[in-house]
Amino acid sequence: MTIGEKSVALHRKLKGKIELTSKYDVKNKEDLALVYTPGVAAACLAIKDNPEEAYNLTSKNNTVAVISDGTAVLGLGDIGPLAAMPVMEGKAVLFKKFANVDAIPLVLDIKDTEELIKTISHLAPSFGGINLEDISAPRCFEVERRLREMLDIPVFHDDQHGTAIASCAALLNALKLVKKDIKEAHIVVNGAGSAGTAITSFLIELGAENIVVCDIAGILDPSDETLSSYQQNLARVTNQKGLRGDLSDALVDADVFIGVSAGNILKKEMVARMANDAIVFALANPTPEIAREDALEGGAVVYGAGISNTPNQINNALVFPGLFKGLLEARVRQITTEMEIAACLALSNIIPEDELRPDYIIPDVFNLNVSKDIAKAIIDIQDKTT
Amino acid sequence: MTIGEKSVALHRKLKGKIELTSKYDVKNKEDLALVYTPGVAAACLAIKDNPEEAYNLTSKNNTVAVISDGTAVLGLGDIGPLAAMPVMEGKAVLFKKFANVDAIPLVLDIKDTEELIKTISHLAPSFGGINLEDISAPRCFEVERRLREMLDIPVFHDDQHGTAIASCAALLNALKLVKKDIKEAHIVVNGAGSAGTAITSFLIELGAENIVVCDIAGILDPSDETLSSYQQNLARVTNQKGLRGDLSDALVDADVFIGVSAGNILKKEMVARMANDAIVFALANPTPEIAREDALEGGAVVYGAGISNTPNQINNALVFPGLFKGLLEARVRQITTEMEIAACLALSNIIPEDELRPDYIIPDVFNLNVSKDIAKAIIDIQDKTT
Repeated sequence: MTIGEKSVALHRKLKGKIELTSKYDVKNKEDLALVYTPGVAAACLAIKDNPEEAYNLTSKNNTVAVISDGTAVLGLGDIGPLAAMPVMEGKAVLFKKFANVDAIPLVLDIKDTEELIKTISHLAPSFGGINLEDISAPRCFEVERRLREMLDIPVFHDDQHGTAIASCAALLNALKLVKKDIKEAHIVVNGAGSAGTAITSFLIELGAENIVVCDIAGILDPSDETLSSYQQNLARVTNQKGLRGDLSDALVDADVFIGVSAGNILKKEMVARMANDAIVFALANPTPEIAREDALEGGAVVYGAGISNTPNQINNALVFPGLFKGLLEARVRQITTEMEIAACLALSNIIPEDELRPDYIIPDVFNLNVSKDIAKAIIDIQDKTT
Repeated sequence: MTIGEKSVALHRKLKGKIELTSKYDVKNKEDLALVYTPGVAAACLAIKDNPEEAYNLTSKNNTVAVISDGTAVLGLGDIGPLAAMPVMEGKAVLFKKFANVDAIPLVLDIKDTEELIKTISHLAPSFGGINLEDISAPRCFEVERRLREMLDIPVFHDDQHGTAIASCAALLNALKLVKKDIKEAHIVVNGAGSAGTAITSFLIELGAENIVVCDIAGILDPSDETLSSYQQNLARVTNQKGLRGDLSDALVDADVFIGVSAGNILKKEMVARMANDAIVFALANPTPEIAREDALEGGAVVYGAGISNTPNQINNALVFPGLFKGLLEARVRQITTEMEIAACLALSNIIPEDELRPDYIIPDVFNLNVSKDIAKAIIDIQDKTT
């Protein structure tokens, strides 16, 4: 059986990977009167008098909505909300496993962006945070930005920022290993969708000054009028040397390749054109931009990928559970870049510098310190500011 | 401590009455690859190819949304979505306890009816059914009707139909006990909101021909132009004798009083004006229309109430868990009146006729046969029609 066949068989056996359970066993009429009418009315009124009590008297304090419209699911594209459900349930399983956060998968049957924003905003009262997932670019930028303005709970598009935080944590460690400085490193980001855009912005926040972004048409060029406004913004803040050409041109003497694009588009010969001690992150799923052996044969010293069967798996699952745990525990209303940077540093610092090796720049997703340390980093920031 | 204080203390201790749990423990990278990327992609594609597979591969088959806008919560009125949350979580606890159905509480921050309908319709893909809850009348009628037209999963406004099914199941047994026929019985329904409207319609479906509906202004009269269109409809199908006056006038020689109105509005003297072997259901919460002792002193033979500290508790919790269990198991797309009648008969028939007593006309909510029998009644109908 292929892994896909095995997965379908498991899904068919489970008939759903998650379930809702009670934290209190209702054994008799007295219990019933406490968790439900008439007693429950007092809990309702306490929240009506003081909305903050919702965090003390309901599940809001530990519950996140995992919301998708199914327009950009994994590498599968616009498969619709119903078909996106297994991914959202999978995320809910990981939220629980790695950080004991209750995540409710909600797939929305909406195509219109305004309608999507409105609908998600209406859902906010039940939740302590919103994890947006698998929403197509460039709509995802608008959706997240507007919801952050509207809501008083944190909104986080994982495909953007989860990927950025995880890959930059790995990059910081890889750069330590090859003794290069992020400020000087020549970094090529391949893919100008939600992940590529977020990684680029985050690299700049971390101090990178020499980034070139490529998409399928080659190096992004601010004078190209066919670019979307988001890509134009990207082009404007990158490519300081005004390079033109394709990915192969961009990679000449590059220190870092970060691919968030498509399988097998990076060739061994292109890696060979990179600088010494090259770092290659091939994050496309399920097929990386280049296989590990090819990247190493091309001269890369550090290789990371999104898939699980190579060392250095760079996976959002390293980030979202602990990040939301911290956001919920600290009752954060708005995620800040400072928090994202703190999460990134917490993740990279889990591996002591003297333990870093080319095939160990990012902790294993089953390392329980990961979510704990990230949550703590968020809580520390909130404690500092309140 | 009052029951309200005890309830708040319990809520504060629990910090939410429900949690989301995994049905599969992810122990290693192979597990991860099955429940999440890359394996999960095959489950997504299987659903994309055949949407029906969502019922086999995701939690949709056993998951209901419990949705409220917080406009008509218990007897508390429009307390808003956040403050409604403890009730919705309470319902989720009962769904799980009595029928092992996973119910997700969703409180929506919406005032506009059209917006409410649109938002709920967008949520449908994640769920196998929708339980509407505590939405104010007359909006609730429009919301339910329109959603039933739009969606291919069952939509059930519990305040209407759950109340109707539970109270009519009790009534059928009470009528057996006093040897009266529903066709001839003179029935007074007091309260013309969502529950009163639904009870009246359901009584007619069950064969009742002599119903008078009262609201705060007295007996509903089809010539009264101040009535809402829903109340006018109610007036038109009831009060065949053209009675005028107040509740006290309506009750002269009445066989049955069903109150879904407000506490303490029914007086002992009014009960005394009813026919012999009068049946009084005082369903207002938390204070019934009349206390049990007063009703019995007034001459009532059978008394039922919504509260838990008297015999014959007529509670929606007798209905919604088993009803949805049946709807989900039979993959019903549209609830029919036939199904509601079947649920009502299943509920009343749990007590064998020779065991009926004035203080035992409706089974206890903790009787495990209740949800089983109701679910079976729904499944039997679906089997018959497919």
